[in-house]
Amino acid sequence: MSVHTDRSAVTVLGLGPMGRALATAFLDAGLRTTVWNRTPGRDGELVARGAVPASSPEEAVAAAPLTVVCVVNYDASDAVLRQDAVAAALKGRTVVNLSADTPERARDTAEWAGRHGVRYLDGAIMTPTPTIGTDDAVLLLSGPEELYREHRPVLAALGGSHTHLGEEIGRAAAYDIALLDVFWTAMAGYAHALAVARAEGVTARELAPFAQGIAAILPPLFTEFAADADAGTYSGELNPITSAASTMAHIVHASESRGIDASVMRVIEGQARRVIALGHGTDGFTRVAELLARH
Amino acid sequence: MSVHTDRSAVTVLGLGPMGRALATAFLDAGLRTTVWNRTPGRDGELVARGAVPASSPEEAVAAAPLTVVCVVNYDASDAVLRQDAVAAALKGRTVVNLSADTPERARDTAEWAGRHGVRYLDGAIMTPTPTIGTDDAVLLLSGPEELYREHRPVLAALGGSHTHLGEEIGRAAAYDIALLDVFWTAMAGYAHALAVARAEGVTARELAPFAQGIAAILPPLFTEFAADADAGTYSGELNPITSAASTMAHIVHASESRGIDASVMRVIEGQARRVIALGHGTDGFTRVAELLARH
Ligand SMILES: NC(=O)c1ccc[n+]([C@@H]2O[C@H](COP(=O)([O-])OP(=O)(O)OC[C@H]3O[C@@H](n4cnc5c(N)ncnc54)[C@H](OP(=O)(O)O)[C@@H]3O)[C@@H](O)[C@H]2O)c1
Ligand SMILES: NC(=O)c1ccc[n+]([C@@H]2O[C@H](COP(=O)([O-])OP(=O)(O)OC[C@H]3O[C@@H](n4cnc5c(N)ncnc54)[C@H](OP(=O)(O)O)[C@@H]3O)[C@@H](O)[C@H]2O)c1
Repeated sequence: MSVHTDRSAVTVLGLGPMGRALATAFLDAGLRTTVWNRTPGRDGELVARGAVPASSPEEAVAAAPLTVVCVVNYDASDAVLRQDAVAAALKGRTVVNLSADTPERARDTAEWAGRHGVRYLDGAIMTPTPTIGTDDAVLLLSGPEELYREHRPVLAALGGSHTHLGEEIGRAAAYDIALLDVFWTAMAGYAHALAVARAEGVTARELAPFAQGIAAILPPLFTEFAADADAGTYSGELNPITSAASTMAHIVHASESRGIDASVMRVIEGQARRVIALGHGTDGFTRVAELLARH
Repeated sequence: MSVHTDRSAVTVLGLGPMGRALATAFLDAGLRTTVWNRTPGRDGELVARGAVPASSPEEAVAAAPLTVVCVVNYDASDAVLRQDAVAAALKGRTVVNLSADTPERARDTAEWAGRHGVRYLDGAIMTPTPTIGTDDAVLLLSGPEELYREHRPVLAALGGSHTHLGEEIGRAAAYDIALLDVFWTAMAGYAHALAVARAEGVTARELAPFAQGIAAILPPLFTEFAADADAGTYSGELNPITSAASTMAHIVHASESRGIDASVMRVIEGQARRVIALGHGTDGFTRVAELLARH
């Protein structure tokens, strides 16, 4: 069997928390897994579980027809991939880049790959490390359908649901950016809420069951708002943006009167106030989406 | 039966979306429900269902031992309650203020109530209007335990779970502020994500199933982080704040390169960068809670 069609081998470049989780899932699936990381010494546990350590990225990518890259961003994946020896070793092989970055960087990497005869899929992982190899993992992929089909059996070792979003290479990153936007903004709200609660003598553990409850309201709301948003209607019948703005002002005031920075909520309240001033006070808060994109 | 102990009557002041939902639930429970709103004409449907319309707030509060106030904020509830005729009519009766505002305003209102012989409970509604009268409603209350017990049978008509957070009157507002902080910040992230997705040719409906998925990650994470946060440890083992900051920079860049305002994420990224600069780059993002409260 030529190395190019060996369906039982895979290489992982990047052994941060996520790269290690990916390599572990491949090993658990019985795949011959070669690993490399810029900083040595991250592969100890993986090698003990049977991974093959490579001493350079070119050696690593030569060991399998499929290389999964998972580093902090595309500056990092460029630093690893865009070296003559690595590009040469990758010729005719496939790279799946599961690092997070912008659609623009995904497109640029596909262009580089094309120039070097490297077959390229872009992807994004939408769930935390403990989900990898379980039913809860969520992976998004974009790029040539044929390439996606070819490597699906190996990628299946990562578990969960894999969605091929289409051939446009930037699609996975576009979804990734939008979804991480929701995630990190919500996390910022949570971190701020912890500070406010603490200042009011409420512990994180006391708040937790209710914080869980409020977060559980979000998924159905997101779906509910989606059709409206696509149609450009933002109903405020159940909760007008004027009411939201008032609540935001309370949050700013309650925070700052306790010496807590409320700059995120100040910006959000400002967006709501502008939507109201533009004549949309009876609409719902999500009309802010239109304001943000005004040209 | 004196009006003061009539367990089958209740008054609702404020007939916005939430006030109307509350009055509807009281009516559905068979309670004699008197309603009033500053702007006339909001009680049509309620009166058709059997509500008693009052022509002034003093007339309304005189009709029942328990008055529930649900207006936009405490400037509004002050405007309604702090009138001589209303205070006089409320003497010896109970007010439950379910309007949202700061702990400070709740304390101030309790102080006013005390001076006027008005019995006072403060509360917050943590779920949207359609949940009222169903098992999904979540109400938080604070103030005298005895008063809470006395009115629990009538308030039970609002459905769901009611939690008495203690005698300190500002407690319900403190939880409310913290929880709405999570909610509205997350909603701001969602509205922004819709704008970014649209600019990349992704519709809200295409994004919706994944947005649901990302939101569903939050409730267990909040609980997981709570014990850490109380202990002042913020583990970044699974996801360091350096990785989060990198993702935030992608979101800012991808937004602004499409002409979309990214000021919220700029502020959040700035917080993450400061935590890193202060020497906590290997911690998790929630360490930001400490930064926000630095004195
Ligand atoms: N952790 C999660 O829960 C999670 C979830 C979904 C998606 N992701 C994504 O997965 C990717 C990897 O995340 P992670 O959690 O493993 O941690 P990370 O901190 O984002 O990335 C660490 C990895 O990037 C490498 N790296 C950084 N700069 C480099 C450079 N200039 N050249 C070569 N390698 C470089 C590191 O190598 P060194 O060891 O040499 O520094 C390490 O292997 C990120 O894009 C992240 O957004 C993570
Ligand atoms: N809607 C929800 O999903 C929801 C969920 C949880 C909690 N809440 C809270 O419930 C409260 C009521 O919310 P809502 O949804 O019904 O809508 P809202 O827009 O927050 O409040 C509208 C009500 O406030 C009254 N009001 C405003 N200013 C007033 C003033 N100066 N004097 C007297 N009345 C005044 C309005 O009377 P007019 O008709 O005369 O303007 C109307 O009755 C708010 O504190 C809100 O945060 C709402």
